[in-house]
Parts: sequence; structure tokens; C-alpha cells
Amino acid sequence: MTDTRTDSLSYGDIVSIYIDEKRNFVIRLVRGGILGTDKGFIKHDHIIGKSFGETVYTSRGAKAYILPPILIDKLRLLKRTTQVIYPKDLSFMIYLSGIRPGSRVLEAGVGTGFLTISLANFVGPNGKVYGFDLNKKRIRILGEAIEILGYKDRVVLKVGDVRKPLDLRGLDAVFLDIPDPWNALQTIYEVLKPGFPVIIYVPTVNQLEKTVIALREHGGFLSVHAYELLLREYDVSKGATRPQTLMIGHTGYIVYARKVFCEK
Amino acid sequence: MTDTRTDSLSYGDIVSIYIDEKRNFVIRLVRGGILGTDKGFIKHDHIIGKSFGETVYTSRGAKAYILPPILIDKLRLLKRTTQVIYPKDLSFMIYLSGIRPGSRVLEAGVGTGFLTISLANFVGPNGKVYGFDLNKKRIRILGEAIEILGYKDRVVLKVGDVRKPLDLRGLDAVFLDIPDPWNALQTIYEVLKPGFPVIIYVPTVNQLEKTVIALREHGGFLSVHAYELLLREYDVSKGATRPQTLMIGHTGYIVYARKVFCEK
Amino acid sequence: MTDTRTDSLSYGDIVSIYIDEKRNFVIRLVRGGILGTDKGFIKHDHIIGKSFGETVYTSRGAKAYILPPILIDKLRLLKRTTQVIYPKDLSFMIYLSGIRPGSRVLEAGVGTGFLTISLANFVGPNGKVYGFDLNKKRIRILGEAIEILGYKDRVVLKVGDVRKPLDLRGLDAVFLDIPDPWNALQTIYEVLKPGFPVIIYVPTVNQLEKTVIALREHGGFLSVHAYELLLREYDVSKGATRPQTLMIGHTGYIVYARKVFCEK
Amino acid sequence: MTDTRTDSLSYGDIVSIYIDEKRNFVIRLVRGGILGTDKGFIKHDHIIGKSFGETVYTSRGAKAYILPPILIDKLRLLKRTTQVIYPKDLSFMIYLSGIRPGSRVLEAGVGTGFLTISLANFVGPNGKVYGFDLNKKRIRILGEAIEILGYKDRVVLKVGDVRKPLDLRGLDAVFLDIPDPWNALQTIYEVLKPGFPVIIYVPTVNQLEKTVIALREHGGFLSVHAYELLLREYDVSKGATRPQTLMIGHTGYIVYARKVFCEK
Repeated sequence: MTDTRTDSLSYGDIVSIYIDEKRNFVIRLVRGGILGTDKGFIKHDHIIGKSFGETVYTSRGAKAYILPPILIDKLRLLKRTTQVIYPKDLSFMIYLSGIRPGSRVLEAGVGTGFLTISLANFVGPNGKVYGFDLNKKRIRILGEAIEILGYKDRVVLKVGDVRKPLDLRGLDAVFLDIPDPWNALQTIYEVLKPGFPVIIYVPTVNQLEKTVIALREHGGFLSVHAYELLLREYDVSKGATRPQTLMIGHTGYIVYARKVFCEK
Repeated sequence: MTDTRTDSLSYGDIVSIYIDEKRNFVIRLVRGGILGTDKGFIKHDHIIGKSFGETVYTSRGAKAYILPPILIDKLRLLKRTTQVIYPKDLSFMIYLSGIRPGSRVLEAGVGTGFLTISLANFVGPNGKVYGFDLNKKRIRILGEAIEILGYKDRVVLKVGDVRKPLDLRGLDAVFLDIPDPWNALQTIYEVLKPGFPVIIYVPTVNQLEKTVIALREHGGFLSVHAYELLLREYDVSKGATRPQTLMIGHTGYIVYARKVFCEK
Repeated sequence: MTDTRTDSLSYGDIVSIYIDEKRNFVIRLVRGGILGTDKGFIKHDHIIGKSFGETVYTSRGAKAYILPPILIDKLRLLKRTTQVIYPKDLSFMIYLSGIRPGSRVLEAGVGTGFLTISLANFVGPNGKVYGFDLNKKRIRILGEAIEILGYKDRVVLKVGDVRKPLDLRGLDAVFLDIPDPWNALQTIYEVLKPGFPVIIYVPTVNQLEKTVIALREHGGFLSVHAYELLLREYDVSKGATRPQTLMIGHTGYIVYARKVFCEK
Repeated sequence: MTDTRTDSLSYGDIVSIYIDEKRNFVIRLVRGGILGTDKGFIKHDHIIGKSFGETVYTSRGAKAYILPPILIDKLRLLKRTTQVIYPKDLSFMIYLSGIRPGSRVLEAGVGTGFLTISLANFVGPNGKVYGFDLNKKRIRILGEAIEILGYKDRVVLKVGDVRKPLDLRGLDAVFLDIPDPWNALQTIYEVLKPGFPVIIYVPTVNQLEKTVIALREHGGFLSVHAYELLLREYDVSKGATRPQTLMIGHTGYIVYARKVFCEK
């Protein structure tokens, strides 16, 4: 990553282009490439040699900022093949999991890959994300983004069913976003290191109840918690500050538990 | 970290002891050490040779689980010298910042250190957290915990005022939890790499407004956002699931912005 | 009600006594009566001849305001025999119901009576609240408060089971706070005027689901809606305004539907 | 209002027509009238002689229910000339105010009239709502709806400024929805009966702070509280119940206080 104005961008680099809050793009610079927007287009060639934090202008004169692609930018590279998990939930799930550089984790189902990319960011080059999904196409589409982002060494994607035994063991965390997490508890139990957590995301309150009860009844999970996060964004202006009128009222519930030696 | 039941705990190891949701401790094992609880005491010596995920009994027969100290456990090692930032906020702040293994970040003021420990977890052994606070005593108390947690190489604590110029440059993110963040914007601007974010935490809506307006007026910050998170925990039981009666109604607001080249 | 400073209070009047937010009482003035508080006592006789809005002092010199008993004060006269419905929910239930002076409504179960008193306030002297509960003692205790408040003519309390047919007909609204509202739908249908609403309060999400589905399947109810309200109180001070730290995170869910001619 | 299937609708009656949640109309039946919808039209003449709770079909065969116009239906008669106050807020404001049949209240500014109509509903034919607004056109437009709804005797609308002295006295409650409520406190104080409440609605947190501080500093107001309500609606289906994805994140804040004799 470029640290100072003298480090200049070259072909192959991934950059975030910011015109305004609604015109926010992530591209890989290619020779002759064009970024088209409703405010005019930008030639990739015009970005070459510039540095992060500098500006470029569209063909119609709109100013665009060239920014380094941090985690929240990278999500915009992903093609939405399923309902995604939002940053408010992703962040809490990752925090609760306690993962760190070098952690080895299981994720199922990867879907669009918002969580996969986030996990890849935090486990780093020495960590490993084993990502499963039942859907071949989703795995292929996400695989392409993983390659562009340079995460091929740390993310292993597989078409597969985590409700059946896996040959993974000793993982630092498990993340589930599947319709019936209660059917995957034995697999989770087997792949997790003792004392480490599983984090489950479900959209309905019925799945929440069923998941929590299954975790308790399994016998090998401790400290089961169920959470929901609400995010409000504020419109700030001098003397007229207030929450935004519209907000996301619901995304999903987050369940947390930790493996202990089974007593059943 | 122990991977299997055969890895056994020894003196010097940090372990989390879980009796129930309200009796949850983090200790470093020392020869002859005693953990006292209202359910009886546990001799550290009885934990030696056991593995994570196993159990031990208190002098009064209560069962306690021995768990590995993941991030949320480690927070319990910190002595509260100030109002803390809660995990719901810590997690979103860290996610938005885009930090990753190896990131170099500034944090001020460190206070009790919940954010410091969290940043240390995520930047890893190759990253660096420069933690400032005006209060000597807080720095000293947090320093002791940093040492116990083995984070001495990655966390640099200093008594100092970030509203004055610092000799740091090229940082990947800045985190502020100080009463007057608007007075630290020029320092933030100078230490950040172009395009990288600053994340600010403030408890009142007046500070929120003042911070956002100062960021906009500074000229070197883009994409300013203001957020608030609400966390609901659920009481789950078969056929009687509902949110908990009491919840934390407010902790603080989170402001996000990214450095670009100043146009003023 | 007294309109001006010249209208003076006399024995038998109900008054609200306000020392501070936590010392807030509702009493009926009786000859020789004493209101004891941890800030000293107040003799009822000292209030006689005063007007609403004036002050009186406790034996220990604390100032107390004499206020007219408006609806929210009257709730404090009720002895809590069950979990109550909070004003945030009471108000929305009453608003949705569309009741007005003269409305005739059914309520079950009355419990502590927060909703009964509220309904009595809004239907007025020409309206009627038919209040049912299975529990004799609750009916008796609430009956005493109804008498003190002068609502005997407008509130008819009965020990009875609304899951069985009632001999009421042509009501303007029905309010239910019972554990199994789905078992009372036929009674509700029979007592309501066509087109008029039923409002149901339930504490768990399982009851919410079961109630909504039963209303839909019954065939005689239209426009079924399910709501939840969250109330935040703010601590306001100049330059340091913020929501209160603790809030009620959950009370219950509110279901609304309107009777139409049954198609089954 | 019609109580049974034998009471039949006639010209001049106001009815609510419900096709589905998004096709929900309130009309006054006139000879030869037509209600046009994107599901076909309904001739008013076809509704004559029917009863509430019965159905009628559109020209394109869509079934429509004929419902009595309860309070929430009547709001749909109002032409939106300003940002409205939503039912979740209207209901709590009215509840806190303690108004009842026969109450006399002041409201400013009336705007679109959602609060005016709600107050008219609850004070009834023996009560009085004095509604002020600075804007002539709004007063005229609201006046037409007041007449259609039959509320002419209980609602007195005036073009006027409540920041200046009024010749009203002895009111049971005051409701303000004006940009600068702090400039109307002396008027509020003068028109209210001692001990009775003022309820103020403001959209921004800055107005909230300024209003609360002005109420405290005035000297004649007690028990000042500041609230915010969040309403979540639920999508209920068997085994898949969850809050709706989108919600209104903010409407406004509600301030409550009670007049006492001024000590300044």
C-alpha cells in the first residue's frame, strides 16, 4: 500500500473512486479501462501515477477522489447472489468470535461473500477461511472476487454441506449463515477447538429460537447468547441534528456459543 | 494455544473460568494461586495439566469450565478507570476502520483500554497501536494489563496530548475517545495515510454535531458519517422468546471520515 | 377540577403530590390523613384550602407541589397485582382503537388495571368499559380503585372468561391482554360491531405469531398488523444531551385487526 | 354509527374503503360519486344501502370492504400541507396530556391537522380544540376537512401566533409543534390551568435541548421529560416471523412538562 504522495498507482492496483456518497466505486486499474458513471466517465489511464487521497475528474467535470480500498470498499466488489450480512452484524460477529491474525475458521454458507471477505481481512495472510456453500455458482462468482482481491492463499472455497461431517479439525471459530443451523451442530462441535466460539446468523425469530434451544440441548455448547443490532445513522447539520428518517429495521439475529466437552 | 485435550495448561497461562453467566473470570495461573468466588474457591494448581473445554470444581462443588481467553474474555482483565466503550461499538469502530494484521494505528485516549486491547488483537504481532492518554495513572494501570496479555511489543502507551503535533506519520487508522475531538483534527490529518479513516467515539449528541461539523470544515476529510448502535439481547425459551426487559439505551455515537488531500 | 387559584381543595379530593421525579404520590385527602415520605411527612389538613399548582412543605422542610391527578398520575393509585402495560403501549393501543367519548368497549384481562383506568379516562362518563378477569382478587382490588376514582358508572368489572361466549354485543373496540388470545377470537368477533377493531397485547414473539395467524385464519378479521414500540428517554443538559443509559428494552407486542363479515 | 347489518349507509356518510393494505381510501358518499383506483372504480351508489363490514366490488372485480371511519382512517382525509406527526407520537402525546371528554386544549401549529383531528376525537363534542397556525392556507384547507368530519363545533381554527399573548385561559393542555417553542412558553404558562401539562413536538435534537432548558429556566414548569419513540412493525408468517426490513428511523422528540406557580 502506498504511504505517501510519492507512491504512485499502477495497472493491477485496486482503487476506490469516490464522487459522492451515492457514487462510490471499486475498480482494478487496467490499461484502456473506463469507469462509466452518470456524472461522466473516468479513464483508468488517468489514474495511473496518481496517489491515494488525490483527485481525478470525470469527462463531465465531476471531481472524484482516489481512495485505498479498505474493507468496506472491498465489499462493493462482490456481486450480490444472496441477501448479504450487513457491516453492523459482520462486525459484531467477528468481534465476538475473537479471531485474530492467523486464525483458522469455517464459514457456511458463504453466499455473496461479505463475511468471507471480512474474515479474510482479519485473519490475514497467515490465517485460513474455509468457506462452504451448497451453490456452485455462488462459489464460482465469489472465487473470482477472492482472486482479484489477492485472497486466494487465505480463502479455501468448497461446494459442500456442513450438515455432514467435514475433515477439518482444531478451528478457532465457526460462522454459520444457513437456513437450518441446528442440523450442523455436530459438525461445528467436531471442527472447533475446545472453548472456542460458534457464531450463527439467522433472519427470523423462529430460527433464533430453534438454534438456541438446539445448542443448549446438544450438551457441548456453553454461554449461549442471542443478539440483535439496530444501526441508526444521523443527519448532522449545525442546529438541526437528527437521526435519519429511514433506517434498516431488521436484518437478522446473532447467536453466540462456545464449545466445551460434551456431557451427554 | 492448545488444540486438543492432550495440550495441558501450565503456570503463566491465562485462562477464562466460567461458572455461569454472572460468574465469569479471567486469571493468570500462578503457583499456589486461589480464585475466590461466592460459589467457593478454585486452586490454580488444580487447573494445571487440564485442557481448555474441561471442567474443575470449586471448594463448594460448583462446576467451572476452563476456557481459552478470547478477546471478550481479555476485556475482563482490565481495571475500569474510566467509562468503557462496549463491544457493540468497539466492533463497529474496528470494522469501519478497515484495519488488518500489520496495521499501525493511533488511539487516544486509551482510558480503561477496551479499545486498545481490541486493536492489539486485530493488528496482531506485526501491527502497532500507539495509545495516548493525558492521565499517567491510567497509562500505568493499562500498561500492566498489556504486559500480562503479552502485547508489549505491539502496544506503545504514552502520556501525551493528541491535540498537539505528534511525530507519528503514515498510520492506517486513528481512533479517538476524547472530550474535544475537534481540537485534534490537524494532528489526525498529519498522522494518517491519505485515504485512510479516522473513527471517533463521543457520548453526547452535542459532541457528535461539533465533531462532524469540524471534520467537514477542516477540508481534509471526506465521507463523514455519524452512527449509533443499539444492542438487544434476547431471552430465548421454547414458546416464550422475547427481548430482555432491560437494555443499554445509550453508550455513544460513532463518527467516521477519511483523509484526503486538504483543499483549503 | 379547579381552574384558578381561588378554587380550593377539600376533603375527598384526589391530588398528586410531587416532591421530585422519584417522590411522586397520589392521595385522597382525608381528615387527619398523613402522607409519609423519606423526605418527611405531609398532613392532608395542610393541603385543604390550597389550589393545584401551589406548594406545601414536608415536616423536614422539603417542598412539594400539589398537582391535579391527570391520567398518568391515576395509574399510581393502582396496586400492582400483575405485570402492567406501560404508557407507551397503552397510548398506541388506545389510539389505534379509535375509541372516543361514549365508546363501549370490552377489556380482558384487566390485571392491575392500567388499561382499564386509561380506557375509562377516554370513553368518559357516557362510555362503558366491560372489564373481565379470571382472578377474583384482582377484580376486587381494582374495583376499589375504580370507586375512589369515581369511575363506578363507566366501568363494569366481572370475574369471567372471555374465551367463552359473552352476552355483550355491538361494542366499539375490544382489548385483550390474556395468555391465549387465539382462544377468544370467536367471542371478540361476536361482541364487536362490524368494521371495528380488536387490539391485543402479548409479551412473547411466539404469542405474537400465533395470534396473528389465528386472526388471519378465523376469516372474520381484516388488516392484521403487529407492532412493537421502543421508548427512549433523554437526559438533557446544555451541551451534553444524550439518551438515558438504561432503557426498557421490551414490554410486549401489539396486534391490531378489524372485524368484517366472516367468509368461512 | 351503524351498529348492525340492518343499519344501512346513505349519502353524506363517510366510509373507509379497504381493498388491501396499500389501497385504503376514505370517502364521503355523494350521489353519482366515483372512487377510482388502479384496481378499477367503485360507484358510491353501489355502497348505498350496504352496512359496515360488508363488501363491494370494483369495476375490475376486486373485492373492497366497507369500514366505519375510525380515527386512523380519518387522518387519510387530510391533505398534507406540512410534515405530519405520526400515530406513534400522536398517541403518546395525547396519553401524556391526560385529556378526556370535555377537555379544552390549545394546539399550535396545526399544520396538516393529524393532531387536531386526534384531539377532536378524544375531547369529544363537549370539548374544545383551539388550533392556531401562522399559515392562512393551511388553516383553510384543514377547516374544510374539519367541516366534512363534523368537528366544526369542537374545533376553533385561527390564523395566529402563539408566541404572542392569547386571550385564552384555564386550558387543560397545550400542544406545540412549532419551530421555536421556547418563544411561546409565557403564552403557554398563561393559558394553562395550574398543574396541567404542555406537550411539545420537535424534529431535531437541538430544538429538544433548547426547549427543555427554556422550560427549566422559565420557573413555572415542573417535571420536564424528553422522549423519543421507535415503532417496529413485524412481518408475521408461520415459522418465519421477523421485524420488517425498513422502518421509520426518526420522526421527532416529545417534551412534557407541567405548569406550577412561577417562582421567579
